[in-house]
Amino acid sequence: MIKPRTPPGVMELLPPDQIAFQRMLDVIRRNYERFGFLPVETPVMELSEVLLTKSGGETERQVYFVQSTGALGKASAEGGAGEGLPELALRFDLTVPLARYVAEHEHELAFPFRRYQMQRVYRGEKNQAGRYREFYQCDIDVIGKDALSVRFDAEIPAVIHAVFSELDIGAFTIQLNNRKLMRGFFEAQGVADDELQALVLREVDKLDKRGEEHVRQTLTGEGFGLAADAVDRIMQFVKFRSATHAQALEALDALARDGANDALAQGVAELREVLDLVRAMGVPESGYALNFSIARGLDYYTGTVYETTLDAYPQLGSICSGGRYDNLASQYTKSKLPGVGISIGLTRLFFQLQKAGLVQAAGSSVQVLVTQMDAAHLPHCLAVASDLRRAGFNTEAVMEPGKLAKQFKYANRAGIRFVVVLGEDEIAKGTVTVKDMLREDQFTIARAELAGALRVELAQAQAQKDARA
Amino acid sequence: MIKPRTPPGVMELLPPDQIAFQRMLDVIRRNYERFGFLPVETPVMELSEVLLTKSGGETERQVYFVQSTGALGKASAEGGAGEGLPELALRFDLTVPLARYVAEHEHELAFPFRRYQMQRVYRGEKNQAGRYREFYQCDIDVIGKDALSVRFDAEIPAVIHAVFSELDIGAFTIQLNNRKLMRGFFEAQGVADDELQALVLREVDKLDKRGEEHVRQTLTGEGFGLAADAVDRIMQFVKFRSATHAQALEALDALARDGANDALAQGVAELREVLDLVRAMGVPESGYALNFSIARGLDYYTGTVYETTLDAYPQLGSICSGGRYDNLASQYTKSKLPGVGISIGLTRLFFQLQKAGLVQAAGSSVQVLVTQMDAAHLPHCLAVASDLRRAGFNTEAVMEPGKLAKQFKYANRAGIRFVVVLGEDEIAKGTVTVKDMLREDQFTIARAELAGALRVELAQAQAQKDARA
Repeated sequence: MIKPRTPPGVMELLPPDQIAFQRMLDVIRRNYERFGFLPVETPVMELSEVLLTKSGGETERQVYFVQSTGALGKASAEGGAGEGLPELALRFDLTVPLARYVAEHEHELAFPFRRYQMQRVYRGEKNQAGRYREFYQCDIDVIGKDALSVRFDAEIPAVIHAVFSELDIGAFTIQLNNRKLMRGFFEAQGVADDELQALVLREVDKLDKRGEEHVRQTLTGEGFGLAADAVDRIMQFVKFRSATHAQALEALDALARDGANDALAQGVAELREVLDLVRAMGVPESGYALNFSIARGLDYYTGTVYETTLDAYPQLGSICSGGRYDNLASQYTKSKLPGVGISIGLTRLFFQLQKAGLVQAAGSSVQVLVTQMDAAHLPHCLAVASDLRRAGFNTEAVMEPGKLAKQFKYANRAGIRFVVVLGEDEIAKGTVTVKDMLREDQFTIARAELAGALRVELAQAQAQKDARA
Repeated sequence: MIKPRTPPGVMELLPPDQIAFQRMLDVIRRNYERFGFLPVETPVMELSEVLLTKSGGETERQVYFVQSTGALGKASAEGGAGEGLPELALRFDLTVPLARYVAEHEHELAFPFRRYQMQRVYRGEKNQAGRYREFYQCDIDVIGKDALSVRFDAEIPAVIHAVFSELDIGAFTIQLNNRKLMRGFFEAQGVADDELQALVLREVDKLDKRGEEHVRQTLTGEGFGLAADAVDRIMQFVKFRSATHAQALEALDALARDGANDALAQGVAELREVLDLVRAMGVPESGYALNFSIARGLDYYTGTVYETTLDAYPQLGSICSGGRYDNLASQYTKSKLPGVGISIGLTRLFFQLQKAGLVQAAGSSVQVLVTQMDAAHLPHCLAVASDLRRAGFNTEAVMEPGKLAKQFKYANRAGIRFVVVLGEDEIAKGTVTVKDMLREDQFTIARAELAGALRVELAQAQAQKDARA
């Protein structure tokens, strides 16, 4: 007898949680499609040689390699990424597969190419709570050929806003910054070198943990040796958050006035255009803010960058991030493919939301249970169940007769809202009795009117929910 | 520069095909849910020790093992399935993970446990057309604790019927048989031994390819040495297909009369109950048939077995198969867990349907394109796009102004039905012009009425489609 268990570092859910998870996936997908993004799925296995061209270091060490039983037997020296690595590996994100996909199918795609992809990725992470070795990423990207207007950067916050509004997990703020603006600003403070900028940003990132004084001392201290007034300006810069659209534009104006280089001016112009279009797309002012401390992957993003935080749970960190990059697939094609995109790491987010009590196990995906008191009634029960299914209700029919109390208890535990009862009496009269487990109400109705009545009940529930929202 | 390409044996689709594939997944899922099945997803990686307990031989040789970079470096002798195999492997079906899941969560699940699972599985198949190393399986199973009434076997054809009716890929027949009935019948013909039965069935399976005479000679010949009249009865038995419900019941009656053993009698009784309930669930007579030649996995199924074939394309083989088994998870738990289920191998089916011209690349998932003639109009265009999205339409907004002709051409190629135009004139008057690419029609309408008008157009298209069906 083998103990049934999953490997460490994967998330496996019981049905009530799986239903809640699935609903989140559905909301994300629906909103991605609403903004005109097209579905793409790529194989979980890629050729190691193709997958591992760009990344080195940390990412590569976390890669999972795949070998069939036959390949395991053979010497590991053949095939692979030139270093005796196995021929196949599991994707560790959806960005490299997107780059491969776009480069491979370049002449079959229409640009700007707008795709969404919601699949699992694999990383050999350390085994600790909230870290997953298998997790969903839900990505959108718009890829241009040769060029891609900064206007596309403005669509992304509109998508984020639509997704998280419908996910209904509390107020959130989309925080925007621009890498060119950052680079220009730091240059103006005398921090011109890219690596030094990265080091300064790393220190600044410790503001919340170590406090302002510690960071100030480090930056003015031996290692960095920055002038005190430059550090002051840096501290003020990274602490800035706009509260309104007007305030954001003012801050950009001020930077443009003070600033003295092209990068800064370009970053300001881009952010200004993005902000104005975000507003034109109907995102409310309370939903977005400038935050000059956001950097994201320094070696990857080149323009607009995004992070999204839950207002009441800043400690969860960013729940949706991304940005603008100059060239998606330089390792596969000479074509220049600039793009902009975001990713939601749904597995981790779901874990965090559960821990914070922000997502509850959903009611069942089953809406109606048709009970059965006596085997002789079964054909009637099955006919009623068939009618309900044809009318679009997810319906479970009890297949073995038993005590009603037990069947009610089952519906209750399973979260099924409507329980349909057909006794001798009902069958003789052509009616059914419906118990509404949510309202703790019950009514008897003609069979032919059952689906219509349930539809009204559900519409009322939805209307009440909408009224609350 | 690395050549961007996928490994052999995987299916990757361009967006129009991916949309068609996704719609099939959606139809299957919707129907599985409609019958009260609950979603389950399991990790793609399982512990080798857990995954590879039961299967030997063919399946095991096709398994893909997974190792992180770190594990690759270490000796392969540690961990694994006791033979120095790597610790992790990719699932090769959804049945073993279901067994593991049910055994692991036995005390948290309500029985009968009804689950659906639609995920990819992995097999180191030979590289040839129509054989995939990564492919979707779409499974449902009902699992009982200790016992599961044969009535559940009758629900499965109702699900199959609902799924393939909505998939709309032509007339199909669900073919039913029963392993007990088969065993009883063969015993009555003097073929009592299980292995001998399997060998006879394998010969009988060659009927279509080799012809009746060849099979008859083999079975009466040296190797088998069966009596000529027994072979006659066997040939008649396996060639039988019922054309109506009444004919199916008659055939069962005849078998029960002739038969002289418990297995046959039990098989006949089970099939009879299943057939009657299948009818009670509203499956039309033309949708199912008895077929005594269907065996499926001989060492796995123990009662009802199912295959489904497209009437006009029998050469595609079974497009949905399954059956009843006695005990799901004997390798993980002492609990007896009988079940019944089916699987649709969607990747292969999609490939076959495409080859047969039965599935076309779908229209775009985008329903409306909002064009842009002049950058100055953008805020108006974005506002119209936002309104459409709020009204539930999948809407792409053109973000860079350009020639209208080019934008129309794009919509046409992409399969987007409605193209919205906002020129100076329309903006001044608060109207939009809509071109319907399907009807080659166009109209101008007040902005506020746009969403309503498009909804009417789509409803008409749907009504026409329904009228045709």
